[in-house]
Amino acid sequence: MYDAVFRQMNKQLGQMDKWLDAAVEHAKAKSFDPNLYLGFRLAPDQFPFSRQVQGTCDVAKLAAARLTGKEAPAFADDEKTVDELRARIRATRAWLDGLSSNDFAGAGERTITQPRWEGKVMSGADYFLEHAIPNFFFHLSHVYAILRHNGVNIGKRDYLGALSFRT
Amino acid sequence: MYDAVFRQMNKQLGQMDKWLDAAVEHAKAKSFDPNLYLGFRLAPDQFPFSRQVQGTCDVAKLAAARLTGKEAPAFADDEKTVDELRARIRATRAWLDGLSSNDFAGAGERTITQPRWEGKVMSGADYFLEHAIPNFFFHLSHVYAILRHNGVNIGKRDYLGALSFRT
Repeated sequence: MYDAVFRQMNKQLGQMDKWLDAAVEHAKAKSFDPNLYLGFRLAPDQFPFSRQVQGTCDVAKLAAARLTGKEAPAFADDEKTVDELRARIRATRAWLDGLSSNDFAGAGERTITQPRWEGKVMSGADYFLEHAIPNFFFHLSHVYAILRHNGVNIGKRDYLGALSFRT
Repeated sequence: MYDAVFRQMNKQLGQMDKWLDAAVEHAKAKSFDPNLYLGFRLAPDQFPFSRQVQGTCDVAKLAAARLTGKEAPAFADDEKTVDELRARIRATRAWLDGLSSNDFAGAGERTITQPRWEGKVMSGADYFLEHAIPNFFFHLSHVYAILRHNGVNIGKRDYLGALSFRT
C-alpha cells in the first residue's frame, strides 16, 4: 500500500505539471507574466504558490526517503520561474520513479523523526497516515486552488487525472 | 490500511469541526453573520464552502460504504447554517465510527461504480487510491483554504490535528 500511495502521489505531481501548462496559457491570454504566479497566495500569511509547489514535491520526496531509508536529492528552493518549478516537479518524479515496492518493506515499523520535532518520533505507519498523506494533498490542493482563484482553466478532471476504469 | 485511512479521514473531519469554531469566533470579532461562510468560494465556478464541507463528508461516507458494502445514511444537502454543517460532520463521523477493520475485508477486490460513470467500473483498490483519497483531501483542503482566505485564525496544526508522537 505504501508503494501504491507514492505511485498515486507521483501521478498527482504529473497532473500538477499539466496545470502549469494551463496557467501559462491563461497568462498569455490575459497578457501577464506567467512567473507572477510564483508569488500568488490565498492569504497574506499563507505560503505563496512557489512554496506550495515545492512543498508538494518535498512531502512526497521526504516521506518516501524516510519510509525507505533512501537518500533523497536536495533542491535549493530558489525557483523563480514556472519552468524552474516544472524542473523541480520532474526531478522529484524521476527520483520517485526509481523506488520499488521492495524498498518500502518494513516502512510501517520504521522510526521517523525530523529536526522540528525536537527529539520526538513517530512510527512509519503513523507518520504516513497522519502526516505524509494529509500534507501532500494539502499542498497539492493549495497549488490547484491558487490557480483556480486566479482564473486558470482547470477542473476536477485535471486534478484527478485519468482513472483506471474497467469495462 | 483501508480501515486506517478511514480512521484518519474521520480524524480530519473532527479537525474540520474545530475550524468552524474558529470561523464563528472570527465572524463575531468582525461582526458578520457566520452563516455567510456557507456561500463563500475561491472562484466563481468553484463550489461554495457549504458544498465543500458536504463533499468532504460525502467522499468519506460514500467511499466507506462502497468499499464495505454497507449502506450509508443519506443527507438532504440543505444545510443553511454553520450549526447544520456541524451536525452533518458529526453524523458522518458517527457512522464512520461504527465501521470496523473487518468490514473492509476484500475491499480492494470489490467492483465499484457510480451513476456518473455510465456503466464503467473501477476495482476497489484503484477507486480508493485514485478517487477516494485525492477527492477527500481536495474538499477538506478547500474548506480550510476558504476559511484562511477569509481571515480565520487557523493554521497547519489545526489542519493536521494531534500527531501520534512517541518518546
